[in-house]
Amino acid sequence: MQPRFRLTADIVMSGALSPDAVESLASVVNDCNTVHFRKGAPKGVSSEEIGFIKDYSVKENTISVLILSGPYTRAHDALFRLRKHLAQALGKARLGVRNITITGFSVQLLGDVPEGLVVPRLPFIAGSRVEPGCVTLDMTVSAVDLENRIPDRIIRLLEEKIVARQYGGKGEHWDLVFESASKPRHFSGDPTEEMLKRNWVRHALSRGQWIHGPQSVRIFRAFEQIVMDEIIRPLGFTEMIFPKLVPWEVWKKSGHAKGVYPEIYYVCTPKTRDPGYWEEVGDYFKVTGEVPVDLIREKIDGPIGGLCYAQCPSFWPFLQGETLANDCLPARVFDRSGTSHRYESGGIHGIERVDEFHRIEILWLGTPEQTIDIADRLHEKYTRVFEEILELEWRCARVTPWFMAQEGLVDTTGTGGECGCGARIGTTDYEAILPYNDNWLEFQNVSINGDKYPTGFNVKIQSGEACWSGCSGIGLERWTAAFLAQKGLDGENWPESVANLVGEQNEVFRFL
Amino acid sequence: MQPRFRLTADIVMSGALSPDAVESLASVVNDCNTVHFRKGAPKGVSSEEIGFIKDYSVKENTISVLILSGPYTRAHDALFRLRKHLAQALGKARLGVRNITITGFSVQLLGDVPEGLVVPRLPFIAGSRVEPGCVTLDMTVSAVDLENRIPDRIIRLLEEKIVARQYGGKGEHWDLVFESASKPRHFSGDPTEEMLKRNWVRHALSRGQWIHGPQSVRIFRAFEQIVMDEIIRPLGFTEMIFPKLVPWEVWKKSGHAKGVYPEIYYVCTPKTRDPGYWEEVGDYFKVTGEVPVDLIREKIDGPIGGLCYAQCPSFWPFLQGETLANDCLPARVFDRSGTSHRYESGGIHGIERVDEFHRIEILWLGTPEQTIDIADRLHEKYTRVFEEILELEWRCARVTPWFMAQEGLVDTTGTGGECGCGARIGTTDYEAILPYNDNWLEFQNVSINGDKYPTGFNVKIQSGEACWSGCSGIGLERWTAAFLAQKGLDGENWPESVANLVGEQNEVFRFL
Repeated sequence: MQPRFRLTADIVMSGALSPDAVESLASVVNDCNTVHFRKGAPKGVSSEEIGFIKDYSVKENTISVLILSGPYTRAHDALFRLRKHLAQALGKARLGVRNITITGFSVQLLGDVPEGLVVPRLPFIAGSRVEPGCVTLDMTVSAVDLENRIPDRIIRLLEEKIVARQYGGKGEHWDLVFESASKPRHFSGDPTEEMLKRNWVRHALSRGQWIHGPQSVRIFRAFEQIVMDEIIRPLGFTEMIFPKLVPWEVWKKSGHAKGVYPEIYYVCTPKTRDPGYWEEVGDYFKVTGEVPVDLIREKIDGPIGGLCYAQCPSFWPFLQGETLANDCLPARVFDRSGTSHRYESGGIHGIERVDEFHRIEILWLGTPEQTIDIADRLHEKYTRVFEEILELEWRCARVTPWFMAQEGLVDTTGTGGECGCGARIGTTDYEAILPYNDNWLEFQNVSINGDKYPTGFNVKIQSGEACWSGCSGIGLERWTAAFLAQKGLDGENWPESVANLVGEQNEVFRFL
Repeated sequence: MQPRFRLTADIVMSGALSPDAVESLASVVNDCNTVHFRKGAPKGVSSEEIGFIKDYSVKENTISVLILSGPYTRAHDALFRLRKHLAQALGKARLGVRNITITGFSVQLLGDVPEGLVVPRLPFIAGSRVEPGCVTLDMTVSAVDLENRIPDRIIRLLEEKIVARQYGGKGEHWDLVFESASKPRHFSGDPTEEMLKRNWVRHALSRGQWIHGPQSVRIFRAFEQIVMDEIIRPLGFTEMIFPKLVPWEVWKKSGHAKGVYPEIYYVCTPKTRDPGYWEEVGDYFKVTGEVPVDLIREKIDGPIGGLCYAQCPSFWPFLQGETLANDCLPARVFDRSGTSHRYESGGIHGIERVDEFHRIEILWLGTPEQTIDIADRLHEKYTRVFEEILELEWRCARVTPWFMAQEGLVDTTGTGGECGCGARIGTTDYEAILPYNDNWLEFQNVSINGDKYPTGFNVKIQSGEACWSGCSGIGLERWTAAFLAQKGLDGENWPESVANLVGEQNEVFRFL
């Protein structure tokens, strides 16, 4: 889209302009239009595409201007260049710029407008018009908003929405990398149904949430042991503890604040910890047996953020602002210290599609080459585990998730381009077949995230090379669901090494 | 406090009362006052203390009554007894009770009124008067509220507040059980300050929250290993996974809904998962770089509950409504699957007073004798660990926490009284001295909770004996803070077995 800007502003000076000052102003305006505004614009572009002071007038201490531009030295950039040169020229006459009021700001975007395009609802957009070949935005912005480049960001956002519309929204690219041979299947039922019958799990009282009994946890811990022995220790990952409550500050830097909202469990804090302030809430419960949710709502602040969604963003403040010594790279850590939560309102099912789950998160960083190398070695180890230990029927595929597309990471020939690594940025999903419904279940992934996190959290490498990172999330519920769906709940049908690790299924509770 | 009730109500019948029906009514009223209302009242109480229909009148299909009472056959109970006998007597005349409207309800509580008593703010209390020797409450209640015994619960609540005022609020009883000898101290600094210097931990971006680096986690895992080897396996506890998001339904049954509100991190859910509904939130961030918290607040429901506070309540739905076979008792489980969160606005300090922490929660249940026996064996094991392995300077004390007092569990001669076990209900806190500030830090506890949880979640034992439970929370941050505060951060000063378990402190990150 080609932008056209129209800006009117009142520049208030510290005093009325003398005739000499008005003459200096005329000269500044002329220099701006013929020299200053042209700096940085490519040669050969038409003068209509470059910022231009179309008109101006002076009344006492106020200079009113009308600035037009195309994409080069955009009208608001032109305004600030004018301010700078004004300050220099009129400084001699002891006049300073006191204040700038934006009296009008509109943008026209010329180009193909997809059908059904909706202009974003934002406080800065006072009015808009969508026509074939042109989107017009009337904005209410202050000079500070212009310095913060709000119009440029709005245009970028609109362009993203146009691209999203053209590519049909949430589409993912999906390319098969590997598909295993068939393996022995010993079960055709829904594993969760069978686990429920045997009291291995019970529904907890919130949605998509389970209480795992001793038998279920033995399987989780056996898988964790396999991950430790076959993957984490051989590849040299070290355990850390990543926080599980995620404040906005983390998601702002990780990029999740761009679009994670529909699936978040939000966290709010008490307005005060004063017991007297909360007494009536407890009193209400004691008298009625019900919790007064609306009353509580008035007494809490926030949300301050949400529950762990992706597991690795919370790690990054550990490195924030640091430069890492070359010889500690690639750095390799993992976390298994708590739960992740997603508001999966649609497809909750069994233990495999849940709102609360347990994941071992593996994270590494280094140069692009190091980052890719670790990802490749992880893939080899996973292949061995699924083929030779779990004996699963599985496949894996490269996907480009929506969030990376949103962050402009799809076409990455630029980032890390020196080594041609850019094409490796993205996620590989690992899927297992569920015989009971013939669906493929994504049970883990490996992602190469490029410089997204190091850039967001300002982490650098001593050598000056690009800093990249990767992560891999191992879902214990998903591993368990995939394994039990294919092999059933009876240890005698399991691969021997798994059966040995799980061991005797002791009965802790017996119900009448 | 002695209650006096005054109730006026209109009982609307299905048709106008014939002269015969009015005669039957007179007879019912007389029988109520002389016979029915006296049932269940102790002998010898004065007739003023028992429910009495002081006056009544009939107009077409409506019977208006005035009922007075003391503590026996309270006016509202009397009303429902009257309804029952009315229905029987007038049923013959084909008249049924259609509706009851409470036109007035007030209570006087006679007795010592402590100074400064504040009547609770509740929607049912339209007005109140506190005078020496008497509290008067005017209530706005429906017949359904009376059937739900709202007035009785309000009176109980007021009596609790009077007791709380008399006992000075949040007081705890504290009785020393054991105090260790002095032990070698190797450090006089604040361990967190030193951990920060060595990059063992870093502040996370939410309050009272840390990212634990490799060295810190090695210590956590060494302590976890000690707990597994010395306590959990020898005493036969089996691992489960308790959920970490706690909906109101759990806290209603566990009793936490009575008063946990000031310290909770609340959880809210999206009103919908429709991406279009959330688009403007992401758009706002993309354009401004800020998260629009007020806009999000309008788009979320709840709170639906909060983050894990005490760790064991979430376990109990696993057993809800069940009767346990005698031969599986005492049942012993533990959970270490995630974080706990408390809004500790006042005393956040270092890694020892935090908002987000990691705890191994041990839980057991059985008969009162079995429950007490496990608690005693835990205490023996803990003593061995703190004396012989960690070589800590520690003490332990029996405390009666406020929440148990609130739930009427302080004086428990009744519950489990057959065995004289009631006196054992309560909590034993374990504390370690922090040499750097000479304070005692509570680093874990053992609680015998009586029948609180089994009753709340309706869990029974085959034999018909009382079902009791206990829990013990091992705080990994607290163990670490206590140990490092006394022994310092250098492994050469640690007891050998701890130093061996922690092993080599490998350096994963090196900063320039």
